[in-house]
Amino acid sequence: MRLHLSTWQEVETYLQTSKAILIPIGSTEQHGPNGLIGTDALCPEIIGGLAAESGLLMAPTFNIGVAQHHMEFPGSMTLRPSTFIATMVDWVDSLAKHGFTHFYWLNGHGGNIATINAGFAEIYASRSLDTGNGRTPIRCKLRNWWQGKETYEKCKALYGKAHGAHATPSEVAVTQFAYPDHIKTAPLSPEIAPSGGYTDARDYRARFPDGRIGSNPALATPEDGELLAKLAAKEVTADFERFAAEQ
Amino acid sequence: MRLHLSTWQEVETYLQTSKAILIPIGSTEQHGPNGLIGTDALCPEIIGGLAAESGLLMAPTFNIGVAQHHMEFPGSMTLRPSTFIATMVDWVDSLAKHGFTHFYWLNGHGGNIATINAGFAEIYASRSLDTGNGRTPIRCKLRNWWQGKETYEKCKALYGKAHGAHATPSEVAVTQFAYPDHIKTAPLSPEIAPSGGYTDARDYRARFPDGRIGSNPALATPEDGELLAKLAAKEVTADFERFAAEQ
Amino acid sequence: MRLHLSTWQEVETYLQTSKAILIPIGSTEQHGPNGLIGTDALCPEIIGGLAAESGLLMAPTFNIGVAQHHMEFPGSMTLRPSTFIATMVDWVDSLAKHGFTHFYWLNGHGGNIATINAGFAEIYASRSLDTGNGRTPIRCKLRNWWQGKETYEKCKALYGKAHGAHATPSEVAVTQFAYPDHIKTAPLSPEIAPSGGYTDARDYRARFPDGRIGSNPALATPEDGELLAKLAAKEVTADFERFAAEQ
Amino acid sequence: MRLHLSTWQEVETYLQTSKAILIPIGSTEQHGPNGLIGTDALCPEIIGGLAAESGLLMAPTFNIGVAQHHMEFPGSMTLRPSTFIATMVDWVDSLAKHGFTHFYWLNGHGGNIATINAGFAEIYASRSLDTGNGRTPIRCKLRNWWQGKETYEKCKALYGKAHGAHATPSEVAVTQFAYPDHIKTAPLSPEIAPSGGYTDARDYRARFPDGRIGSNPALATPEDGELLAKLAAKEVTADFERFAAEQ
Amino acid sequence: MRLHLSTWQEVETYLQTSKAILIPIGSTEQHGPNGLIGTDALCPEIIGGLAAESGLLMAPTFNIGVAQHHMEFPGSMTLRPSTFIATMVDWVDSLAKHGFTHFYWLNGHGGNIATINAGFAEIYASRSLDTGNGRTPIRCKLRNWWQGKETYEKCKALYGKAHGAHATPSEVAVTQFAYPDHIKTAPLSPEIAPSGGYTDARDYRARFPDGRIGSNPALATPEDGELLAKLAAKEVTADFERFAAEQ
Amino acid sequence: MRLHLSTWQEVETYLQTSKAILIPIGSTEQHGPNGLIGTDALCPEIIGGLAAESGLLMAPTFNIGVAQHHMEFPGSMTLRPSTFIATMVDWVDSLAKHGFTHFYWLNGHGGNIATINAGFAEIYASRSLDTGNGRTPIRCKLRNWWQGKETYEKCKALYGKAHGAHATPSEVAVTQFAYPDHIKTAPLSPEIAPSGGYTDARDYRARFPDGRIGSNPALATPEDGELLAKLAAKEVTADFERFAAEQ
Repeated sequence: MRLHLSTWQEVETYLQTSKAILIPIGSTEQHGPNGLIGTDALCPEIIGGLAAESGLLMAPTFNIGVAQHHMEFPGSMTLRPSTFIATMVDWVDSLAKHGFTHFYWLNGHGGNIATINAGFAEIYASRSLDTGNGRTPIRCKLRNWWQGKETYEKCKALYGKAHGAHATPSEVAVTQFAYPDHIKTAPLSPEIAPSGGYTDARDYRARFPDGRIGSNPALATPEDGELLAKLAAKEVTADFERFAAEQ
Repeated sequence: MRLHLSTWQEVETYLQTSKAILIPIGSTEQHGPNGLIGTDALCPEIIGGLAAESGLLMAPTFNIGVAQHHMEFPGSMTLRPSTFIATMVDWVDSLAKHGFTHFYWLNGHGGNIATINAGFAEIYASRSLDTGNGRTPIRCKLRNWWQGKETYEKCKALYGKAHGAHATPSEVAVTQFAYPDHIKTAPLSPEIAPSGGYTDARDYRARFPDGRIGSNPALATPEDGELLAKLAAKEVTADFERFAAEQ
Repeated sequence: MRLHLSTWQEVETYLQTSKAILIPIGSTEQHGPNGLIGTDALCPEIIGGLAAESGLLMAPTFNIGVAQHHMEFPGSMTLRPSTFIATMVDWVDSLAKHGFTHFYWLNGHGGNIATINAGFAEIYASRSLDTGNGRTPIRCKLRNWWQGKETYEKCKALYGKAHGAHATPSEVAVTQFAYPDHIKTAPLSPEIAPSGGYTDARDYRARFPDGRIGSNPALATPEDGELLAKLAAKEVTADFERFAAEQ
Repeated sequence: MRLHLSTWQEVETYLQTSKAILIPIGSTEQHGPNGLIGTDALCPEIIGGLAAESGLLMAPTFNIGVAQHHMEFPGSMTLRPSTFIATMVDWVDSLAKHGFTHFYWLNGHGGNIATINAGFAEIYASRSLDTGNGRTPIRCKLRNWWQGKETYEKCKALYGKAHGAHATPSEVAVTQFAYPDHIKTAPLSPEIAPSGGYTDARDYRARFPDGRIGSNPALATPEDGELLAKLAAKEVTADFERFAAEQ
Repeated sequence: MRLHLSTWQEVETYLQTSKAILIPIGSTEQHGPNGLIGTDALCPEIIGGLAAESGLLMAPTFNIGVAQHHMEFPGSMTLRPSTFIATMVDWVDSLAKHGFTHFYWLNGHGGNIATINAGFAEIYASRSLDTGNGRTPIRCKLRNWWQGKETYEKCKALYGKAHGAHATPSEVAVTQFAYPDHIKTAPLSPEIAPSGGYTDARDYRARFPDGRIGSNPALATPEDGELLAKLAAKEVTADFERFAAEQ
Repeated sequence: MRLHLSTWQEVETYLQTSKAILIPIGSTEQHGPNGLIGTDALCPEIIGGLAAESGLLMAPTFNIGVAQHHMEFPGSMTLRPSTFIATMVDWVDSLAKHGFTHFYWLNGHGGNIATINAGFAEIYASRSLDTGNGRTPIRCKLRNWWQGKETYEKCKALYGKAHGAHATPSEVAVTQFAYPDHIKTAPLSPEIAPSGGYTDARDYRARFPDGRIGSNPALATPEDGELLAKLAAKEVTADFERFAAEQ
């Protein structure tokens, strides 16, 4: 069940049996020569969409993330972390108004993790500092789409040390499965990109000239993508249900 | 051409011939008993997507708008205008970094218009108050998807006084065209909803009990939606091209 | 009745019969070679002041507006829209504390309209997102001083196509009526200024070299100004009363 | 010379010989049973206006101050200090854009002093933290209208220990001089109000039931007001000229 | 009793008999050739620490102040006043949550005074603008460590006109007493530094080349420091107790 | 070398050979029945202080962290993450002004990690979004005091599964070493506290009634603390030197 494709009465009905919602959250940033700029937003949207077939409710996609380090590559977009946090607060305040209490953020971008957790603390702080009893307690959970045990092991099994850390074959594969008309090919040199850390965008581009970190996304296939997306969706669905039952 | 479905090298190539980008901007809010909560985000995304087939570049969708007045209806979401403006600034700062100079905001929500224009002033102010020459001038334009002359007249011809102001048959039709599996039916009483103004969410709900304003969205058909979407896309494409050529 | 010229006990008494207040809101920006920089703040203050003779309460003037586009002309001032909105919030929070519930913003600057409406949404949002019942509902209304039917038609009758969009003869006339010692004369070339849109301050100045848009303010006379000011005050008073009675 | 009553060309001419501007800054808050709510904004405006007859340029009045402690008295208004500072930044950024370098803030409200100085530090910080050379240095000065030696001694000579700290006879007198049609009378009991400190608005009202602190404003006369206003204007003019010449 | 060296149960016990807390607040900025950069934070921490031996509770030190004017001297740090105020709000909100109602800010930096008072107004404003009864009233007090009558007179007796205004011998002495291993010597020329005002950091450095204002800190001795610190602690303790008893 | 105990000339000299600075960053929050509220700020200050004996420069301690979850325990303090980030920005802007380019944040609080990383992204974003060349690149590194290999293994060897996650015996031991006069004893029941996750402060207190998570801090001794502090200091010093040499 997707919020965008539902009516308000359908949401009202949903709230009678569940107060939990899945929010796909990603980023819009370069993913190397053959990865889509939308990869990190599309993956949680694709996997969340499969999970939503089970009946859980999926919010629209929070599609611009914290990606300052990619800003030397055309097309990359970023929110400042302070804007990102303010936006999370508004999303939660909106949904909490209707009675949602469990917020499951299905993330597609490693670079978001810190700021999502900072956002949780900002949201909780408004309740923890409140001496009154005015605000309903809520619960937030961050889940990366790839962190289910089976999903993660499948990634390793498929790609081994060519999986890398950015523009990975697994995420490229998931987008190939969902957008078969937009599969890109490009020469990759070296095959496996360099690894390491970075600071700002100039530093990143100097270290990772084509945008990839440690990966060989040429290994991606849409068949792998289907397999991974469905595996991840299965694990996410189960994890969401556990979370929705937490008190 | 869609930013999310492109690589950074494709965007780099695009920038060699155009510095203009289309940004669909909408809202996530109730649209009455048979309208989708995503209607206002989906319409510019659908129409922008058709326009993007001409080769212009479409950004991801800015999908949460200014919708405080809908907050008494489950599923509605809103940004505070101050958050909305901060987010617009980050989007433009990101894209301007790559050399984009022309920002064409294709809007699907009347309630966004004021704050989008306030956002433009915030963005321009950072340049107008700058005594140096450090920042490249940019241009922003707001365009509602329904404001093309032919589109607007077709809406009137199809629905007349049943078109209304919120949860209109035209916008519902466009979503029916794009999401035929999510066409909703529900009894509407009265057939044409009441009209008028409103202030906050409680006031809105008291005046418009099922969420519609002045409309009869039962008149929507997917066939109308296709016609309207294609007409709007044609007009938007032409308007975008004129804008992209402005100095 | 003017807030600035009243005691707190007089305001306390006023609140026993009315919860409505008129707030003149304008801008401080160039108005061409013969228009005063204060024109857009002075006009609502002048007209609001005439209306206040009927007994309604007028707040002090919100005198700096959103005028980034005028910043290449000496003496122009602007608030960033985000500051403008924060200020509106504080004004309303202050007055609402005393029991005011109806806020009638009498505006003198077209460039403020979008941000005033964004400010309304910010103010309402704090109530619409509040799950408790802690905050009293309030109502805001934006009224441009020239939008009364009779006033608007008189402007057209007096100046026709020379009325224009910025530094109009009508607003210059109103200030000439109120400040007869500060009537300015200056050669205007061309007589009727060019028309069109603009983006930031550099763009504005390039298109409108002397600051006017589409107007011939040499047509202004203090006699016209008196007529227009009184007509507008009459219409504003009636409109304010209707608004004050709204539930 | 008043900014609001000048054209942009007149300001351009002024800037050829002076980069200094006087900004009246006050507050909108109760001033006891016979003092006007606008007293603290009107006094610097009146005195600044007399000073401006000498040819110095006076900006519009910054008319809402930091007055949280008066909020239990109807009609009082306040900016939060954070909003107040943001507004000061925008005023200075606007005027500095045109080449103004010397900002003389003529203050009418003791409660503003701390936050005006905090605002100066905010403005200077943007320059002091700038490692480049991009921003022109500017100078700010705070001057209370009553702090000239002769003015201050005249206040003491006229009212002695009945001068007090809020709703003083001197400030009431200045408004009586300028607004003779709005002279208020009201019984004051006790004649001289109590003195002391305060915290928030509830605390203030409990300690100072009619709003005055330590004063007997029944002593005010319009004749005293004229004398004080002219004396203050003379001293302010001389002080402004010294400041304008500072490097 | 020091918050940092206590357990939460000890604080819980303290709150049974007192709701007051002492917060040392200072700055991190150059203090001339022989003064420590931490001087303004260390002095209130040292004196507050002595006072805390009497049993009052001392918070950790608010150690970065408003010091934009020192930014041309290596090692100086500053908060923007807006950040400073936001931080004060969080400190008070945190401690008020536990039931603290009396906040005694023991200050070591003249440049903080304005912004601390602005911070108080920000904190009070959140209560004064609140129409409900939700927030407990609190009281804040600013006390400079040197402002006790005996302390101040001792400073004058010891150093006379060589005391000056920045990098004073008294504050240097207090740090020499507490950090005898970090006593610095350096030639001072002239012996007594120049006096006067300043604006931003460039202006400050041009006027006060070695950082001092009006002082001869070569006069400082650790013996004087001990005497001053103990005197100040005695006066602070008594003043704190009076404050803690205020209603 | 400690910033607070140095003169500006000493910092100027330091900058001739190093552009790197160590910033201790912690938190002020309950640490169970026998842990000090200052533990998380004291540990990096103690260990950083030992490291600073090698000649590296240590800033003052950033002593209030993100600790909203501890707010139901008296004495705990928190910054909202948005305030925390704004403060980090000011610290870095200040020190970067003097030429520092390498910022080594020695952290003592797990709850800070996400927001510190978000702060890094905020700081880098101001550079990554800058199309000009105005700002010097800087590098930030987060290091938890316990994460050196030897230190971490020593913690495990000493305490095994009684080490836990909050109010650990290792951090308590380090403070016992440094503050032997403030060693606390208290009955702990159960000996090893429960483990698990948490959301806001009410949730935390319900799950962890005495404040500890998974630890038995009764195992701490000052001797262990000395050993751990010195081990950590050794590893931190080496790590700092590697970082300072990074390009």
